[in-house]
Amino acid sequence: MLINLDRSSRIPVKEQIRLEIAQRIRSGLLQPGYRLPSVRVLTETLKISLVTAHQVYKALDKEGLTETYRGKGTFVRETASPSGELPALSPYDWQFSIPDSLPRASFWSQSAVRLSPHILDLATASMHSSLLPLELLQASFRQIVDRTPQALGRYAPFAGDEEFCQVLAGYLNKQGIPIKQHQLIVTNGTQQGIDLFARTFLGPGETMAVETPCFSGAIDAFRFTRANLQQIPVDRDGIRLDMLEDLPASIKLKAIYTVPTGQNPTGSVMSLARRRDLLQFAQANNILILEDEPHREIELGRKDLPPPLKALDTTGHVVYLKGFSKFLFPGLRLGCLAADGSILNRLLAAKSITDLGSPLWLQKALIPFFKNPLLPKHIDKLNKALENRRKMVMHTLEQKLDPRISRPKHPAGIYMWLSMPSAINTDQLIPEAHHRGIHFLPGSIFYSGEPATHHLRICWTNLADEDLPAALQILCELLNDSLA
Amino acid sequence: MLINLDRSSRIPVKEQIRLEIAQRIRSGLLQPGYRLPSVRVLTETLKISLVTAHQVYKALDKEGLTETYRGKGTFVRETASPSGELPALSPYDWQFSIPDSLPRASFWSQSAVRLSPHILDLATASMHSSLLPLELLQASFRQIVDRTPQALGRYAPFAGDEEFCQVLAGYLNKQGIPIKQHQLIVTNGTQQGIDLFARTFLGPGETMAVETPCFSGAIDAFRFTRANLQQIPVDRDGIRLDMLEDLPASIKLKAIYTVPTGQNPTGSVMSLARRRDLLQFAQANNILILEDEPHREIELGRKDLPPPLKALDTTGHVVYLKGFSKFLFPGLRLGCLAADGSILNRLLAAKSITDLGSPLWLQKALIPFFKNPLLPKHIDKLNKALENRRKMVMHTLEQKLDPRISRPKHPAGIYMWLSMPSAINTDQLIPEAHHRGIHFLPGSIFYSGEPATHHLRICWTNLADEDLPAALQILCELLNDSLA
Repeated sequence: MLINLDRSSRIPVKEQIRLEIAQRIRSGLLQPGYRLPSVRVLTETLKISLVTAHQVYKALDKEGLTETYRGKGTFVRETASPSGELPALSPYDWQFSIPDSLPRASFWSQSAVRLSPHILDLATASMHSSLLPLELLQASFRQIVDRTPQALGRYAPFAGDEEFCQVLAGYLNKQGIPIKQHQLIVTNGTQQGIDLFARTFLGPGETMAVETPCFSGAIDAFRFTRANLQQIPVDRDGIRLDMLEDLPASIKLKAIYTVPTGQNPTGSVMSLARRRDLLQFAQANNILILEDEPHREIELGRKDLPPPLKALDTTGHVVYLKGFSKFLFPGLRLGCLAADGSILNRLLAAKSITDLGSPLWLQKALIPFFKNPLLPKHIDKLNKALENRRKMVMHTLEQKLDPRISRPKHPAGIYMWLSMPSAINTDQLIPEAHHRGIHFLPGSIFYSGEPATHHLRICWTNLADEDLPAALQILCELLNDSLA
Repeated sequence: MLINLDRSSRIPVKEQIRLEIAQRIRSGLLQPGYRLPSVRVLTETLKISLVTAHQVYKALDKEGLTETYRGKGTFVRETASPSGELPALSPYDWQFSIPDSLPRASFWSQSAVRLSPHILDLATASMHSSLLPLELLQASFRQIVDRTPQALGRYAPFAGDEEFCQVLAGYLNKQGIPIKQHQLIVTNGTQQGIDLFARTFLGPGETMAVETPCFSGAIDAFRFTRANLQQIPVDRDGIRLDMLEDLPASIKLKAIYTVPTGQNPTGSVMSLARRRDLLQFAQANNILILEDEPHREIELGRKDLPPPLKALDTTGHVVYLKGFSKFLFPGLRLGCLAADGSILNRLLAAKSITDLGSPLWLQKALIPFFKNPLLPKHIDKLNKALENRRKMVMHTLEQKLDPRISRPKHPAGIYMWLSMPSAINTDQLIPEAHHRGIHFLPGSIFYSGEPATHHLRICWTNLADEDLPAALQILCELLNDSLA
């Protein structure tokens, strides 16, 4: 357990240690029954006083995350992990003496929740197969299997297959994003783009600003580098630029992570004015912007979407991530990133170290898919289907959800972020949710620091048409009941 | 440019800085024309004296890597990069003020060498398409495209598709490697397995032992974590265990990287006794072993291959990497790793952060391939073809290569490691090699510290049958001429 302390931070060291350990426990990296380092080891490795070490463990005990037995030590409590169903502890006890750099892996722990097949899943962010262009993909794959067997037998260039990059650039150009083929790197989904950026440009002592709440997979990747994260709230126009500008001079921002178009999990869409100002702020301070755009194509009820930051960027400050898993092909793990100059070159070097490039065959197999004139038609059809779903979801929540539970008025994207009164801890609702037959994401995983625990996120695209109403019905009853 | 100094090392700080900068220049991360930090900046950021900073730049100038102009600064020389053909410098000068964590990317820079199509490539480690089971793959892919379209529309579990893992475990079991399905993580090729291990278990101040010479992609991944690397020579029985045992007590090894079966690049095969002793050494000192096995199936003329270390490991000390890119499907970037206990869990958490899992569709598409009864027949046929090639290569070198150039007597694997007299620098032979129509890898990239420059590696499986003799002929002439 490597804990990276920032002694210049305004957060007391004691608090930093407690939070680091709490995050590891909550995300399941430290499993129930695990024995934490002794107070003496903690003082020696972290250079803190005995009193501080005792206070840390006392606070964790009080939080219900650990239990301290006099003379035996402090152990992770059996009930500390939200899933309670993580893989059994290793029989190889010596392995616990091997430290690692993992600060949290909330995404992993959430997905380790093993749902029985009858549970209706409102958590997973994907499209039900009836909404996906599977036939177009099949046709495209068939063509490449038959005609281009040599694509099975060669490595792809590190940046990606040249023809595929050309097709991707064309696809983005049609959306008004003026990106050229040689600016692209093909990645294993957007997550790898986030991770490549993090490991190349972030490290201990450096600071990244993130929206709060924020996509938990991104937080995991940023924290993996041991960089400091600065949480900046989001309002209806996007990330609070005024709060970025007001950061004390001692905090030197290196980068900003944003999902400006359909923010995850709040659905907020950054206004054009905010986009311009944010870019100007980055340019004036030589700050990199990591712009994550997983679902521009499926924004609904907003025909006037402002262009991505990358389309406004003339100075190479924005690294743009484009994902397709959410609405075209979840099973393929292919996305891309666009950047400029030496920032692009360095990300490419990192990609080469990470996995020597993405699979050539999949890239070749998607070329006919992206060229298929039926693809835009599919996206139109998808959007109509999603619009109907969204209306149904909004209507159901309006009808059935207690008005004390707040919901977004004009949610963009495929999520819904619900806020309970602050006394309700949504982590604690999970067992009852499973009991009643649904699953959702508790809000706590969307925070990089001390979590707010009264929110939750649902994704309303994952279930079959016929299952969604029942799932929403159960959700509303559960949340309403919790208020009583 | 983040330079990580180890002030407790026996290598003087001045030497450490020089080597760090030299590696960045040689691997093309610092490109010709790039202006290095001023002497003053160097003293401030690294807390060294002005004299030391001046000495570093003087040494780099002397090596021919940089040029210092009084009053202007120190610049990377135009001729410093072996390729000389890297992408042009960025127009975004401000980006150079953004530091990164990349210490080297030799693999990338080597692959950035743009070969004209008429050059015969003895560098790339892959199989010519005539040696690959493309028809078996095609049949397998066709089956999944037609019958399992839903594999396009779902994410895979982070560890990999369960059925695919089961098939992989069965495949490994048949080779006498007793690995169970739930011990596996599907990776994007072996390189991702190396990288997952590195980023999870290595960090600044920690030390990993590597064979020397060593696969350059592994060095890149280890150095990316800013860990220290301890170079341990390889003899005909594998890594020099006596030298591991003799390391001073101040060096606390955390892990050992080895390619015991057909070492890359020397081809050495570790003896069974050495394997047992190495494992015992790791167990006695709680050291992790990262065992990389890319081509057990294609070892030739050695029917008595000792089992992998993982097959002898009962205590969870070995992380085993299995690759298929070299002889089954280079275009797919799929391999796997096997580990135990919390080491496995932690690697899985890292995999989830890195890219949320490997593509489900490719995993599904390979299931019929691995089950196909024709696969073992293909491997037999491949081995016969490779045996003929190897004999031809050995014979040609015997006939045509100057006896002062040493070569392995019983090379295993698909490489050949040649050693010139020590006065010859193989980096400097590259332009002439291109001029005469061939490409090979200079030995310098296989070293994590100060490189030996009189070796080179050829791979003799990449060319078509009809091109290989001509390439070898040119190679022998070039090397012989260089002795004159």
